[in-house]
Amino acid sequence: MTEHILPEDSGKKPAKPRTDEEKQAVLNRLKRIEGQVRGIQKMVEEDRYCVDILVQISAINKALNKVGFNLLERHTHHCVKDAIQKGNGDEAIDELMKVLQQFSK
Amino acid sequence: MTEHILPEDSGKKPAKPRTDEEKQAVLNRLKRIEGQVRGIQKMVEEDRYCVDILVQISAINKALNKVGFNLLERHTHHCVKDAIQKGNGDEAIDELMKVLQQFSK
Amino acid sequence: MTEHILPEDSGKKPAKPRTDEEKQAVLNRLKRIEGQVRGIQKMVEEDRYCVDILVQISAINKALNKVGFNLLERHTHHCVKDAIQKGNGDEAIDELMKVLQQFSK
Amino acid sequence: MTEHILPEDSGKKPAKPRTDEEKQAVLNRLKRIEGQVRGIQKMVEEDRYCVDILVQISAINKALNKVGFNLLERHTHHCVKDAIQKGNGDEAIDELMKVLQQFSK
Repeated sequence: MTEHILPEDSGKKPAKPRTDEEKQAVLNRLKRIEGQVRGIQKMVEEDRYCVDILVQISAINKALNKVGFNLLERHTHHCVKDAIQKGNGDEAIDELMKVLQQFSK
Repeated sequence: MTEHILPEDSGKKPAKPRTDEEKQAVLNRLKRIEGQVRGIQKMVEEDRYCVDILVQISAINKALNKVGFNLLERHTHHCVKDAIQKGNGDEAIDELMKVLQQFSK
Repeated sequence: MTEHILPEDSGKKPAKPRTDEEKQAVLNRLKRIEGQVRGIQKMVEEDRYCVDILVQISAINKALNKVGFNLLERHTHHCVKDAIQKGNGDEAIDELMKVLQQFSK
Repeated sequence: MTEHILPEDSGKKPAKPRTDEEKQAVLNRLKRIEGQVRGIQKMVEEDRYCVDILVQISAINKALNKVGFNLLERHTHHCVKDAIQKGNGDEAIDELMKVLQQFSK
């Protein structure tokens, strides 16, 4: 489904800017994930057991998906809703579907 | 499936130590992933468009899964095979199944 | 996330009834999937090779997800959009998020 | 990853034939899944609410994955183990990895 690839930078902005609190909450989660990725590097350097590393990778995946889900939720409640109210709903929904499809691949 | 939770540190070691080349290859990928996670932090700080951030999160997920798959492959070809040859195969296979299940959740 | 369980029958209806053509297209896919499930039963009865059966199960999963994705797309373009236009958007979006979460588990 | 496509019929057999009890247990699950697929067809014919249908599709996916996981577990404990003990381990492990990859796509 190559036609479904989304651009890296759309040049768009969130319909409602994120508050400082919202930004900080996401940043805290991402910093924790960054720390987890560094933790795995240390495990590889120490030649730690493969399954132990895999367990950590699966934990990072879950943490990342949680961040993604929260962004998706906010996006739908603000950007998609806003677009629909302004009459550009179909475009926003198509974009939403493409990004969902990208996650399921 | 709480009974399926694996310990964070099993105290075990890979059946065959990773070579320096192998370690370096995994570390390079993990460093790139770490950079991608930092890139998302910057996107959040700059209040970038939600879907653009989601596309990056999905890319990190794929990159992490690739690292995980390679570790899994090596683990099965060495640790699981080794355990089976030494007569401890069932335990190693059960552990493998648990970690697969953790990834699919 | 037990609070996220959706009811088996909400008693609701699609905002825009499915046309006969739409129904038939979904039914055709589902009948093909039903045939594939029966095909796997035959494979089990004939004691066919495990990996061959797994390949078929993975094919059914993909076919089912395709049906699901199409329903989701239609649902968002009609029911969710319609609810937003009528001022009940947040409820419809929450419901959408719950069902997405159910798929990712 | 087209090179990773597995054949529909490998002509191989399980290392240890499934007992009648094992076959029956898998068949019972598959018959239940077949019934669920028919249930969705009825829901589509009755123009039932999209989200209600999606919930059912997600349930079938989970049930199918459970059957798949059990087959995978048995396959690894018998066929893969057997191949390793007979010295054909690497081929069996490669095949296992390919089928895992097919499920994650």
